Amino acid sequence: MLALTILGNNSAIPAFDRNPTAQILQTYEESYLIDCGEGTQMQMTRYKIRRSKLNRIFISHLHGDHYYGLIGLLTSMSLLGRTQDLHLHAPEALEQIIKLQLLVADTHLCYQLHFHPLKSEGIIADDKKMSVECFKVQHRIECWGFLFREKKNPRKLNAERAAIYEIPSAFYDKLQHGHDYVNKKGTIIPNDEVTTAATKAKSYAYCADTIYDENLVHKITGVDLLYHETTYLKDLHERAASRYHSTTHQAASIAKLGNVKKLLIGHFSSKYETLDAFLPEACEVFENTELALEGVCYKI
Amino acid sequence: MLALTILGNNSAIPAFDRNPTAQILQTYEESYLIDCGEGTQMQMTRYKIRRSKLNRIFISHLHGDHYYGLIGLLTSMSLLGRTQDLHLHAPEALEQIIKLQLLVADTHLCYQLHFHPLKSEGIIADDKKMSVECFKVQHRIECWGFLFREKKNPRKLNAERAAIYEIPSAFYDKLQHGHDYVNKKGTIIPNDEVTTAATKAKSYAYCADTIYDENLVHKITGVDLLYHETTYLKDLHERAASRYHSTTHQAASIAKLGNVKKLLIGHFSSKYETLDAFLPEACEVFENTELALEGVCYKI
Repeated sequence: MLALTILGNNSAIPAFDRNPTAQILQTYEESYLIDCGEGTQMQMTRYKIRRSKLNRIFISHLHGDHYYGLIGLLTSMSLLGRTQDLHLHAPEALEQIIKLQLLVADTHLCYQLHFHPLKSEGIIADDKKMSVECFKVQHRIECWGFLFREKKNPRKLNAERAAIYEIPSAFYDKLQHGHDYVNKKGTIIPNDEVTTAATKAKSYAYCADTIYDENLVHKITGVDLLYHETTYLKDLHERAASRYHSTTHQAASIAKLGNVKKLLIGHFSSKYETLDAFLPEACEVFENTELALEGVCYKI
Repeated sequence: MLALTILGNNSAIPAFDRNPTAQILQTYEESYLIDCGEGTQMQMTRYKIRRSKLNRIFISHLHGDHYYGLIGLLTSMSLLGRTQDLHLHAPEALEQIIKLQLLVADTHLCYQLHFHPLKSEGIIADDKKMSVECFKVQHRIECWGFLFREKKNPRKLNAERAAIYEIPSAFYDKLQHGHDYVNKKGTIIPNDEVTTAATKAKSYAYCADTIYDENLVHKITGVDLLYHETTYLKDLHERAASRYHSTTHQAASIAKLGNVKKLLIGHFSSKYETLDAFLPEACEVFENTELALEGVCYKI
């Protein structure tokens, strides 16, 4: 199971107590940070996100509302004595900015920061239980989306039944990967006698800031959760296009075309004091939609 | 009269709902921002500080807790359509960081930002009613303090009495600057017949981050309000020295030696959950001390 916690859901300027974009995707033992607007480290404290579990950070693009909080988070983790490695996946130019800011402060991080520049579409992280792909999205500057996929989970072992069949524990790993067992007498013990089906591997697609773009559809088809920006309500589709952003109807259309399980909408413009109109509009096109609300954890 | 509003009073890492350093000094029609830790733009919104009145920003040094909020504030003011010029006084290297961050975002500020690098001690701003000097303080990296002085205020004119003496209004400006009036008959009208004394010009010294340093005393002697950092309580004077910071007793000693009217202490270490012990300790050495508390406006 994956769990996504929203730390910021606003676009450009912080307003009405809404913060710029940042999300935490919690996997098994680890967590990923997706974008890191100003104040993200304060939001992590507020919502009790453990920094020690954070091992990868993904930055979609270099507009400030998606990364101005990063340098503060990186240096705070150093001041707090972090020792584990940290992996940062981001547009190439970010490395120079970080190096310059550390240089002028005469600061050295006390942990290893591995910078992985985003260069081409494809797999960028391949952890034990998760893989992450990046894909290009259409925005005013270079911008990337991310697709997070759990790896196929192992089947659940029924140890009691395995013991009855006298299967040696050395074979348990193979059982969990679907193999049948053949005992000394040559009798086949079918796998489903001693295991049950694994929970389904889940997927999450994050589309960052993007204009309405049907080329996105094949990249996110069938995911369990799609995050698509909705900077504007549907009446402002012209403004959305001119600023390389999307509306409620456009986000919901991508979700519908991509046949995703659920849509999460966010990156609301600071022109909207309340968000009341966003959900009904999106639901006109794609019913299983939720608003990205700060502090809320969405189970995937 | 000057008024100082504290937007952040914590050191290094945001903690216990305390934010990194930022202060607003309100003068007549304008306001100055002194340091700009992460989240300053949110704190300005929270405490209803009008950005339109902000015309100068002073950055003491390039440790993140004193400037990571600057780039977000600068770009937000542009997004909000600011047109007035803005003056930024800061260590030289900051200009390159800002330029690089604007470049990668393909962003141009829609107002004129004048960058004034801090190079030597002396007057750095000379506005109609205020002058600002910078002076060096001792910290781990290049660091500056700032001294804000109101200019001598004009005397208050009693227009009714001036009319009785038939003094032409063209002479009022001279009256406000202390001149006597001689009428056509050669009679001298003494200035204090038609004016009253001006309010006293006030002064504020901001000592940024500094180790205990008695060389500071002559720079801040006699000011109406002195802000001196107190990262630690008095028992941690060795840690304070090793990190180029100060304790309660040290800040209060500088205030006492400088014979200032009032001392304001801040930049509290994140190791302290509550601030209860700071004020009593400082008052042992210098009685007229106050804690810098976020959201509080201190009249000078």
